[in-house]
Amino acid sequence: MTGNILIPHEKMESVFLSILNKHDFSGERAGTCARIFTQNSLDGVYTHGVNRFPRFIRYIKEGYVLPDNKPETVNSSGAVEQWDGRLGPGTNNALDATRRSMELARAHGIGCVGMANTNHWMRGGYYGREAAGSGYIFIGWTNTIANMPAWGAGNSKLGNNPLVLAVPFLPEPVVLDMAMSQYSYGTMEAYRMGGQKLPYAGGFDRQGNLTDDPGTVLQTELAAPIGYWKGAGLSLLLDILAAVISGGDATFRITGRGDEYGVSQVFISIDPSRFASGSNVETIVKEVIDDYHKSVPSREKDKILHPGERVLMRRKENLEKGIPVENQVWEEILSLAGSA
Amino acid sequence: MTGNILIPHEKMESVFLSILNKHDFSGERAGTCARIFTQNSLDGVYTHGVNRFPRFIRYIKEGYVLPDNKPETVNSSGAVEQWDGRLGPGTNNALDATRRSMELARAHGIGCVGMANTNHWMRGGYYGREAAGSGYIFIGWTNTIANMPAWGAGNSKLGNNPLVLAVPFLPEPVVLDMAMSQYSYGTMEAYRMGGQKLPYAGGFDRQGNLTDDPGTVLQTELAAPIGYWKGAGLSLLLDILAAVISGGDATFRITGRGDEYGVSQVFISIDPSRFASGSNVETIVKEVIDDYHKSVPSREKDKILHPGERVLMRRKENLEKGIPVENQVWEEILSLAGSA
Repeated sequence: MTGNILIPHEKMESVFLSILNKHDFSGERAGTCARIFTQNSLDGVYTHGVNRFPRFIRYIKEGYVLPDNKPETVNSSGAVEQWDGRLGPGTNNALDATRRSMELARAHGIGCVGMANTNHWMRGGYYGREAAGSGYIFIGWTNTIANMPAWGAGNSKLGNNPLVLAVPFLPEPVVLDMAMSQYSYGTMEAYRMGGQKLPYAGGFDRQGNLTDDPGTVLQTELAAPIGYWKGAGLSLLLDILAAVISGGDATFRITGRGDEYGVSQVFISIDPSRFASGSNVETIVKEVIDDYHKSVPSREKDKILHPGERVLMRRKENLEKGIPVENQVWEEILSLAGSA
Repeated sequence: MTGNILIPHEKMESVFLSILNKHDFSGERAGTCARIFTQNSLDGVYTHGVNRFPRFIRYIKEGYVLPDNKPETVNSSGAVEQWDGRLGPGTNNALDATRRSMELARAHGIGCVGMANTNHWMRGGYYGREAAGSGYIFIGWTNTIANMPAWGAGNSKLGNNPLVLAVPFLPEPVVLDMAMSQYSYGTMEAYRMGGQKLPYAGGFDRQGNLTDDPGTVLQTELAAPIGYWKGAGLSLLLDILAAVISGGDATFRITGRGDEYGVSQVFISIDPSRFASGSNVETIVKEVIDDYHKSVPSREKDKILHPGERVLMRRKENLEKGIPVENQVWEEILSLAGSA
């Protein structure tokens, strides 16, 4: 039962297609879906290609994925659209939404599609490659089921929410595609199937200790948050996008000057008052934050804070008592007040 | 010389203002700059408030920051603008660009300003709070001087490129503001000034070993890429933004269903053909990638690859030889081909 077999991609695609045809997938959409699963496998992302295909079929059988359902536009306002994915196949839905965001970008410079109620897109990089391969800059992400603890927590309240950043490049776009866990669950499955330890600690055991055993993390579902190569990759793409979007200098040019000045920045705002569900933004955020605060601290004294919460406490204290400044720093500043 | 002094925020702001007035800052812009430095200090971000102020003045004296220079719009196309920061003060430039991205979002649903040739914005969260406090969703980042190695490299080719994600919330917006290094250089400076070790390894020594000594990392400028609480924070914000932008379910609702379906996704494309420098995108990317590849591997056998590079090699191999599939997986798939 162990060992590998080598399957030509044409054969794989036709096998996928015939299986999809038996499971309520109609012509063109079945072809697209089979092509995405095959391309992901061809590109070496087996975990979200061939290895995942049986589970995809099971989800169809269980009614989680509805093959014939196409996404519907719920709201359209300028360069932003909101879609209902109607539980259609995540692969097809994501490709449609990517292409629509490209159309919106063509019309407005930048375009955004938010899609609710859709399914696993398999490999996010596929859509980054679709957009960047056609000349667009792409930023996209998905949320997931909870499979990662808040920092300092012993239960999972966070998804690993894969993020994709892509930019045109030849012969192949530069595509960063990474889940927020140090290893995707698919990768940890691959290590477990191979009987291997993870190269670095990838999550926590029930006692809150870091572990490099993929089976343990698959069981606890307490994956460790990203770092290492993923932090480095994210940094690289942020630099490229900042330089490209601003038409300014990239890090290597700034570094060449010795001191840090003349940097490049990006500012993207989205107006929720144009959303169909605009009035619900604060409700949604409140629900997520409330649930996040139900994290169980892994050590008794810890309190699980959300980003921005500590600032509020500090501001209150500093407003009341004054801002603590090191004597040395304040003396230097006062000396500047005297200088011209 | 050691120890702290408590400074009321009104006093701090007036001292900053008087110093700025002595250094070629005119009225309103000086007030804005003093307010940002004070607010950052009030919020506890001393490293990018009061502690950084003397260096900001030094940069003015050295001509890196030109106080009177206002940014200019180089290119305007739909919802996207490109600005030249003209080496003006990074605080004022960033606030102007944030507000312009909000105006563009009001007009188009989403708006993007890319700004070249600007300076350190101090604390990125200030601009996230500005936008989200006014009801906007905000995504912004800056590049920096190189201060972080590619994964597996012994020299720094990456900046730590702080990223800000913010969303409206009461009483205070949720604001994620994080550099791509595990600790910002400002934070490491604060630990060093306090004579403390870092709580976790924050970078590498000259031999490529991880170290928790802030002085060593400040010297080698080989900061470790993000992970831990930053990966967790990024995950939280991606979930919130996905749910808000799509009007769909957040992770906690999806988790409540037991199986992962009905997720929320975001697709943002930007059209570089509308850029003033549109034709240069591939040139810029090529320059950055070429420089990145000049990273010196920390171990002899390592090769420093960029995101997407490994995929290309794998695809070539799989096209030639066929796609490797575990026997067990392929058998399961073939059995699906036989089932209805």
